Amino acid sequence: MRCPACGTQVTPFKNPVPTVDIIIETEGGIVLIERKNPPFGWALPGGFVDYGESFEDAARREAAEETGLSVTLTLQFHTYSAPDRDARQHTASTVYVATASGHPVAADDAQRAEVFHEGNLPPLVFDHERILRDYFAFKQNGHRPFL
Amino acid sequence: MRCPACGTQVTPFKNPVPTVDIIIETEGGIVLIERKNPPFGWALPGGFVDYGESFEDAARREAAEETGLSVTLTLQFHTYSAPDRDARQHTASTVYVATASGHPVAADDAQRAEVFHEGNLPPLVFDHERILRDYFAFKQNGHRPFL
Repeated sequence: MRCPACGTQVTPFKNPVPTVDIIIETEGGIVLIERKNPPFGWALPGGFVDYGESFEDAARREAAEETGLSVTLTLQFHTYSAPDRDARQHTASTVYVATASGHPVAADDAQRAEVFHEGNLPPLVFDHERILRDYFAFKQNGHRPFL
Repeated sequence: MRCPACGTQVTPFKNPVPTVDIIIETEGGIVLIERKNPPFGWALPGGFVDYGESFEDAARREAAEETGLSVTLTLQFHTYSAPDRDARQHTASTVYVATASGHPVAADDAQRAEVFHEGNLPPLVFDHERILRDYFAFKQNGHRPFL
């Protein structure tokens, strides 16, 4: 980033950027969104955590912003932090499971929001395919990922 | 932060800062460190994640730096993100469970490193008392925290 006064390059101390993603369980499956911004494609609803906001509040906020659904968080599932999981920058996502009723309505960064089940998942961006593989395994065997 | 050239205040986009803490299981209990820097007191070994570093790598690195132990991670336990958990700034800690053998030797940000068990824990800084309450409950009932 650059100094607003003189334009000199300023390098802040860089950390991985925390994000949240939400696996919203609703009638007929889970809610995915089609992204309005690059990388284009289907993804779990989610986004950046604000400074001063707990990850749980961020998860409820992002779910509401992108799908219109008021969700109830049921589980903190797992945190995914591989540096290459997002090609744009190093983000780390804490993934929550939530329940909601009603139909999703896309808004904010989502151009579509639809319900899918394990048998008809679309191709997914980021590492969301891996996340959902872990999730569907958990639904079968009851184990969240160990590492 | 300030511009290094002209001193103007520059405000980077602020995110919660990701950290890791490690519950190191060893003979006789778990390893705690006495901090060399404020806030002074006993704490789990841990620290900031570097940009480009997975949280698992950060956990192994911080454990080695502060206790001299080469740890094997066994479980990603839980992520704690309440904005008030660290009075200095908003940090979010992903906590790992690990095993190690040998005696801890304090170094880096730790001035002492010792083994404690549930019955003789010292007072702890940050939210590490809560984390260890969750951990000892997990050791009894097998459940990681849900939220």
